[in-house]
Amino acid sequence: MVDNALSPHGGVLVERVLEPVGAHELIRGLPLFPVRHQIAIEAIDIAYGFFSPLTGFMDSSDVDSVVHHMRLASGYVWSLPILLDVSEHEVKEWGIEAGKSLLLTYEGRPLAVLDVSEVFSYDKGMMAEQVYGTRDDRHPGVRRTYAYKDRFVAGDVTLVGPPQLTVPFDAYWYTPRMLREEFARRGWKRVAAHQSRNVPHTGHEWLMKGAWLAAQADGVLVSAVIGEKRVGDYIDEAIIQGHDALRNARYFKPDIHLTSVLLWDMRYAGPREAVFHALVRKNLGCTHHMFGRDHAGVGTYYDTYAAHRIFDSLPDLGIVPVTTLEWWYCPVCGEVTYEELCGHKDQAQQFSGTLLRGILDDGVKPPGALMRPEVFDVVMASADRYGFGSPFVNQQYLEKRNPVLTLPDPVPLGVD
Amino acid sequence: MVDNALSPHGGVLVERVLEPVGAHELIRGLPLFPVRHQIAIEAIDIAYGFFSPLTGFMDSSDVDSVVHHMRLASGYVWSLPILLDVSEHEVKEWGIEAGKSLLLTYEGRPLAVLDVSEVFSYDKGMMAEQVYGTRDDRHPGVRRTYAYKDRFVAGDVTLVGPPQLTVPFDAYWYTPRMLREEFARRGWKRVAAHQSRNVPHTGHEWLMKGAWLAAQADGVLVSAVIGEKRVGDYIDEAIIQGHDALRNARYFKPDIHLTSVLLWDMRYAGPREAVFHALVRKNLGCTHHMFGRDHAGVGTYYDTYAAHRIFDSLPDLGIVPVTTLEWWYCPVCGEVTYEELCGHKDQAQQFSGTLLRGILDDGVKPPGALMRPEVFDVVMASADRYGFGSPFVNQQYLEKRNPVLTLPDPVPLGVD
Repeated sequence: MVDNALSPHGGVLVERVLEPVGAHELIRGLPLFPVRHQIAIEAIDIAYGFFSPLTGFMDSSDVDSVVHHMRLASGYVWSLPILLDVSEHEVKEWGIEAGKSLLLTYEGRPLAVLDVSEVFSYDKGMMAEQVYGTRDDRHPGVRRTYAYKDRFVAGDVTLVGPPQLTVPFDAYWYTPRMLREEFARRGWKRVAAHQSRNVPHTGHEWLMKGAWLAAQADGVLVSAVIGEKRVGDYIDEAIIQGHDALRNARYFKPDIHLTSVLLWDMRYAGPREAVFHALVRKNLGCTHHMFGRDHAGVGTYYDTYAAHRIFDSLPDLGIVPVTTLEWWYCPVCGEVTYEELCGHKDQAQQFSGTLLRGILDDGVKPPGALMRPEVFDVVMASADRYGFGSPFVNQQYLEKRNPVLTLPDPVPLGVD
Repeated sequence: MVDNALSPHGGVLVERVLEPVGAHELIRGLPLFPVRHQIAIEAIDIAYGFFSPLTGFMDSSDVDSVVHHMRLASGYVWSLPILLDVSEHEVKEWGIEAGKSLLLTYEGRPLAVLDVSEVFSYDKGMMAEQVYGTRDDRHPGVRRTYAYKDRFVAGDVTLVGPPQLTVPFDAYWYTPRMLREEFARRGWKRVAAHQSRNVPHTGHEWLMKGAWLAAQADGVLVSAVIGEKRVGDYIDEAIIQGHDALRNARYFKPDIHLTSVLLWDMRYAGPREAVFHALVRKNLGCTHHMFGRDHAGVGTYYDTYAAHRIFDSLPDLGIVPVTTLEWWYCPVCGEVTYEELCGHKDQAQQFSGTLLRGILDDGVKPPGALMRPEVFDVVMASADRYGFGSPFVNQQYLEKRNPVLTLPDPVPLGVD
């Protein structure tokens, strides 16, 4: 039996990062293997320990164990496969096989060395069924699974190109080590993580405030997922800047609130993704993680509170789930209040994403009880600057958005 | 070492109550010893186990241990002396001595049998100094100590006259056993107690709501202290009915809120009284107890948060203190919010007892953000019915208020 209560997960914070100069010798002569954005950010996440105890892309024994038992082969809880997919053609073209090393590149620049330990195939339908509870390819996670190429490459990852996050994300970029140091500097011992893919309305704000109270926390860490977007999502820039506006406008005291980003393409795996979010925030140094309704779900694939119940079977996870029902606006109470406290359910106004989207789409300032005016202003400025006029992802944003990260120029070959 | 974590305190719920018929034989021929209201309610509290593990009025070894070490001679934490005082004259007149039994009477009716174990003297100045931290007789608890007659009678108490509480208190009267049964019926495992001597404003309401969240409680128990009043206090009837109005008007869901009374004359002992409140509510079956600013304090005798810090030295008390700073109304947030969450301290409006008193004194309905209109209406009706037109204690109330309790008629002597 392993001790899942250890923090970081597995007991040691993985850090596999070489500075470019030091990496120079390591990468010389390696075959270059260009990777897409998803693989790049997962390599970065692995290398900085967001995914501790993972040291690389998973091999078949880990995948099999995760898919069937929600644990790594070592026994540590883990809920989602972390995969590097390749085609048969690529395996041949790059001569990918166990014992070889490759230089993963992103946008033409060196990203990470991959020390290949295995090349394998896996039944994607079965993987989807186990991880997502469905094989229905209308589910975006299932679709992502099916879109993987037919072979997977396992192996440890060593970062040689530490990413620079671009404006506005750079101000919110902390590796797990940086966050742990920041928590220590602030004297935060109990930290409640808030997963976000939304511009915060007052319901989100009070969900965080209620969780801070419930966790008897020193601080709230907003951990905004920055990654693949779909049309109609909030743009990443508005999400992170909207959250930061809550503190800047002092709806949170500065000493209990911190905004950060997590590079991750949502899988919408519901309960399995809830466990994954918990583990990643545990690696960040958080002691508690908030889970509201329909956490990381999509469509009607999961029960509203499926992502709450899964933690009943994981009491030793090492990060405490703070599960919450609805915070709503009650016109009788005259304030945002909590479903389990307020007895005016018949009159309460649940926060409707659709309503709020409609208001923001029109650029009309919502009532302060729905969204803080300072948040609205920041979101609209973000829309103008980054969103092609809209706080919501449109086709233009998908095609032309600023890159989230850039890699450093490689050290010129002539240096030595 | 004793196990202070046991609940009820000491591990067994004291119940020393005989029904009048059964008591008939016991009391026959006992000397009658009339007691004043304070002694009557403390005998009742002892007999029903509010003060478990106490089985009677304290003897000199318990008093000495409590005064100097905040523990009973048995080792259990206890913070306030529970004393039955007599004069030298009374000792002689009733022949009070160890081994004798007395029938305590209240308002001419049998209340309880006292089996005397000791008659002793105690240094009241030293007692005041240790318990209240001062010998200043402007402190009402010190004054009460000094007002004790010169001898103390120790001994177990057995109730023979179970009290009937009068309207409106009768609806809120639960003995510890009744409350524990009520909690069990409701499925409440985690219960946060709220000590009150106030008509609840929205700050009190959110203090309770915040504590409910912090305790991850199933329910809030309002435990209103009903006892000796001073001019300017809220009348007891308005306190209990005002609290009940919060639930009746659904500012609390019915299934998370219960209103009850505790018969007790406040000592205003600050931290020592906080410990006492915690122990009594532990005996009621509560798992958590709220402590706001200046709990059970008076004047400037105690630091604002002295009653928070005392629990640091009592980690095994068996009931968890939920210590809270201020809930205030913030005009920027537009709601009641918490000092540690809200960053608008310079604009926040602290709830001022003085302001609220001024408003209520004029009979003007306060803004809903300050006091719920339903609470105001109930308080004003209570003032009309019980308070001689005022929600605040005046001379007329002190002299003519309805009695809080009556004792049953004694079983007629001719029955056997």
